[in-house]
Amino acid sequence: MASKELIHKLEQTIQNIPDFPQPGIQFKDITPIFLNPKLYEEVIEDLANFSRGKVDAVCGIESRGYLFGIAIAVALEVPFILIRKKGKLPPPFVSEKYNLEYGTSEIEMREGQLKPGQRILIHDDLLATGGTTEAAARLVEKQGGIVSEFSFLIGLKDLNGAERLKKFNAEVYTVLEY
Amino acid sequence: MASKELIHKLEQTIQNIPDFPQPGIQFKDITPIFLNPKLYEEVIEDLANFSRGKVDAVCGIESRGYLFGIAIAVALEVPFILIRKKGKLPPPFVSEKYNLEYGTSEIEMREGQLKPGQRILIHDDLLATGGTTEAAARLVEKQGGIVSEFSFLIGLKDLNGAERLKKFNAEVYTVLEY
Repeated sequence: MASKELIHKLEQTIQNIPDFPQPGIQFKDITPIFLNPKLYEEVIEDLANFSRGKVDAVCGIESRGYLFGIAIAVALEVPFILIRKKGKLPPPFVSEKYNLEYGTSEIEMREGQLKPGQRILIHDDLLATGGTTEAAARLVEKQGGIVSEFSFLIGLKDLNGAERLKKFNAEVYTVLEY
Repeated sequence: MASKELIHKLEQTIQNIPDFPQPGIQFKDITPIFLNPKLYEEVIEDLANFSRGKVDAVCGIESRGYLFGIAIAVALEVPFILIRKKGKLPPPFVSEKYNLEYGTSEIEMREGQLKPGQRILIHDDLLATGGTTEAAARLVEKQGGIVSEFSFLIGLKDLNGAERLKKFNAEVYTVLEY
């Protein structure tokens, strides 16, 4: 669990933007974290500590999930596998659809990068309703991976994303919650 | 300049995908690099060495530019500033349009993250025609930043991107060229 000091520093750094992207929604802008390489490294240490020795590869979700995900994988000395939005990866790839408020979206992973039986950490910057994360977990299972852990910088409690991920029987970690 | 050994390892790792995203184009898939954390760290060391002591901040272009860009900034102990596709950053932000083969696109940066007078490294994974990179450089100059260096993992020689960037009077570095 993140220290109170780290959580406090992050709360001071993350900006709350009212009414973005829609009226009534408060956006959490995490970009100021990257202006402070020392703070960024503390976040990586915290996230890597949670998963150390327990995973064989990290899957990061495009695009903010790459900013922490790649560094977690390097810290753990395991492969980092990119999950991308539809249409960006060359074949062969596997894909998974998920529902948005209006319509559907799709994520993809190159075939063969994940090995059957590997214990996988799925990482993204934010856990909201968990729709994208759930699709990522199905993508991992489709290839024989074991969804072992989920980690996020931020969890939005009221949206119950953690509840939705319970079916995967994996640990869920958020550095801080709102 | 990257060692012959590093270039050789990268050439063995990057996958050439014919006819993607369109017939006649050979796509360079860099995702296998991230499966090998040691190789990834060697690439970061090479890219960071080029810019060490010469820049005050790194700007990375969404989304593959984040994968190396954030680690270069951490290695250099300087801020990392995200350049994002249109519509993803909350206000206030600055934006810059650029031409695509058909139509235009737009990139954005949060206002105030770049300080006037800072020497900036602009990083992306691939230098093709240089259209996006040129827009990124204009975005930096618009805020009073000094475009000091450009770095890329891959340069596609035949597309003359480096020629297009000459107007900025900045150093251009590519780890390997095709």
